[in-house]
Amino acid sequence: MKFVCPQSELNQQLSLVSRAVSPRPNRPVLANVLLQVNGENQTVTFTGFDETLGIETCFPAQVESSGSLTLPAKLFGEIISRLPGEDLEITADGSEPTVTIISSSGRYEVRGLSAEDYPALPLVETGSAAELSPETLIRGLQGSLFAASTDETKQVLTGVHLLSEPEILEFAATDGHRLAVVQAVDESPTAADAEMKVTVPAKALRELDRMLQAHSTTAPVIFRFDDIQVCFELDHQRLTCRLLEGQYPNYRQLIPKQFARQMTVDRKLFISSLERIAVLASQKNDIVKLTLIPAEGSVALSVEAQEVGSGREVVPAQITGDDLDIAFNVRYLLDGLKAFQCSEVQIQCNSATSPSVLIPLGELKMTYLVMPVQIRG
Amino acid sequence: MKFVCPQSELNQQLSLVSRAVSPRPNRPVLANVLLQVNGENQTVTFTGFDETLGIETCFPAQVESSGSLTLPAKLFGEIISRLPGEDLEITADGSEPTVTIISSSGRYEVRGLSAEDYPALPLVETGSAAELSPETLIRGLQGSLFAASTDETKQVLTGVHLLSEPEILEFAATDGHRLAVVQAVDESPTAADAEMKVTVPAKALRELDRMLQAHSTTAPVIFRFDDIQVCFELDHQRLTCRLLEGQYPNYRQLIPKQFARQMTVDRKLFISSLERIAVLASQKNDIVKLTLIPAEGSVALSVEAQEVGSGREVVPAQITGDDLDIAFNVRYLLDGLKAFQCSEVQIQCNSATSPSVLIPLGELKMTYLVMPVQIRG
Repeated sequence: MKFVCPQSELNQQLSLVSRAVSPRPNRPVLANVLLQVNGENQTVTFTGFDETLGIETCFPAQVESSGSLTLPAKLFGEIISRLPGEDLEITADGSEPTVTIISSSGRYEVRGLSAEDYPALPLVETGSAAELSPETLIRGLQGSLFAASTDETKQVLTGVHLLSEPEILEFAATDGHRLAVVQAVDESPTAADAEMKVTVPAKALRELDRMLQAHSTTAPVIFRFDDIQVCFELDHQRLTCRLLEGQYPNYRQLIPKQFARQMTVDRKLFISSLERIAVLASQKNDIVKLTLIPAEGSVALSVEAQEVGSGREVVPAQITGDDLDIAFNVRYLLDGLKAFQCSEVQIQCNSATSPSVLIPLGELKMTYLVMPVQIRG
Repeated sequence: MKFVCPQSELNQQLSLVSRAVSPRPNRPVLANVLLQVNGENQTVTFTGFDETLGIETCFPAQVESSGSLTLPAKLFGEIISRLPGEDLEITADGSEPTVTIISSSGRYEVRGLSAEDYPALPLVETGSAAELSPETLIRGLQGSLFAASTDETKQVLTGVHLLSEPEILEFAATDGHRLAVVQAVDESPTAADAEMKVTVPAKALRELDRMLQAHSTTAPVIFRFDDIQVCFELDHQRLTCRLLEGQYPNYRQLIPKQFARQMTVDRKLFISSLERIAVLASQKNDIVKLTLIPAEGSVALSVEAQEVGSGREVVPAQITGDDLDIAFNVRYLLDGLKAFQCSEVQIQCNSATSPSVLIPLGELKMTYLVMPVQIRG
């Protein structure tokens, strides 16, 4: 095996697949990345896999002879990242799983393991497929990922639920306290025959989001899935992941059909005020009280932390409906408001004890539902 | 008490003194900053103190009425930092230690404690004094601080030793494995009568370094000291700190007078090579071997980590003396080389088992001594 490739390319591709390498792998070979050097295609493929999430990337190189082996992801990555920005020569003589890296500055040998010990990446060959533009996919992920549970014991709630209906692809995530739903238009011609209802681990989708953002093409992302696995394909990169098992909650029934009150506020202004109020709220279970004052065209944000202090801010708002005091976890409000990109946001509610819904105005179709917190006294 | 001051000024001054507030104070009042508002001088003074290190800063404000109290450093600081960049009005009615902060966005009340409970900052009123330009002081600190021990049990070695001799001020720090000594010229006219021999905690000097770098004036820093305490005065800021007790090691006797070998290398080139070698060296006690090859005008850096791999780089060097293999902890070499600012560095050594010295060429007078590591086999 022998190939030459610019340091910057190697460094970038290694960083990508290393994100799928576990820091505490179950088997030594899973601490490694798989290198597959193909003389016929003049390409190198790197693979990282933690037995749930796998990332594979294929890129061009001047290949003199083919071969494959695995190398410790961290050590190999750290050496490559520090080498001078020039063409590097990487060779292995085939008798042992050891590479020699030659640059103008010196010579490094890194010992690895045979490629034979590396597990095959579980890809989806026969399942259904759908297509989505990278831009729509990014917005769908960013509008839902933040609401997924980070508590590993919550199983299916640690994922984002992807649901396809004719011409629509829906992203939903909930941790039991709040729910984010994004509806994206599915641009793929083949979407009709691929009915999808899968829950993908948020961890894998965060990596997909990162890959999409680092990516420059607008070519559609193809995703293939069966009952066990999902695989996203972007040009020369693939991300594959085991689906989360279990019934996803019937979240649509949680969203009220009608609202007695409606308020429109400037998103950035509201965020700034909430962030200041959050400082005091953090002293008292993160609870902020909103007081809707339709007559004054404003909403008051307040917190009373008895031992520590108190705060009150007033934000202009267009309100329909009666006065209302309603309290929320300020973190949940901020998470949703920050996931929006609109300038104005609409907040819809019924009473102090029923779920409220936040909607970005003039943006993609997104619904963010938050349960209020009961106020004592 | 009532004053008006721009948010940016309050924020900056609070950040400064908050660095002397302990996150886990022994007494509740020490979690607070002291505010002293002076109508006569039209100034506000903030103080933070953790019973060892104290920082005090005085700045102008539109004061309507005098007064003093203490406020929780973290909470007060977080609210101030998030308020809009405009004039803020801060008031307290005197009956209770509570302030009201009024901005265009809203109104906050923060509860504190009486100023009477706050301990007096131990200042040095009667001790000796010396003066140094901020620039010289910064170079002295940056050339020594990194070599102080971070192990709290090492007591006097966790500080920097400051030693004055006629016209010279010396900064020394050692953790037992390496020693950094900077000699600065003392520009103060009064220095002759102030003989200094004190050890100041590195933690306090890191804060002083930070203060000096944020500071724009070139006015000399005055430092006053007695047997217990040292106090640095910069314009309207003061940093006071309890000295470390105990005899500082007689470090001067550790520095060899003569060297059999001498090598000059490009500092940045040497750092880059060492940083790459350090990746592999980290797999094997951080040990790097230097092979001096005078005939070739080069030094080879190498590491052999049997199970993992090996690396070798060659850096051009002007060498006088015979061939030599000598090994070091690569972290110690890098720490010293990074503290220098010169383009070329001179490395002086005798044998593989006696201390080596690194000297920056054409820069301030600095000596960095490193003990080599014994190479097996």
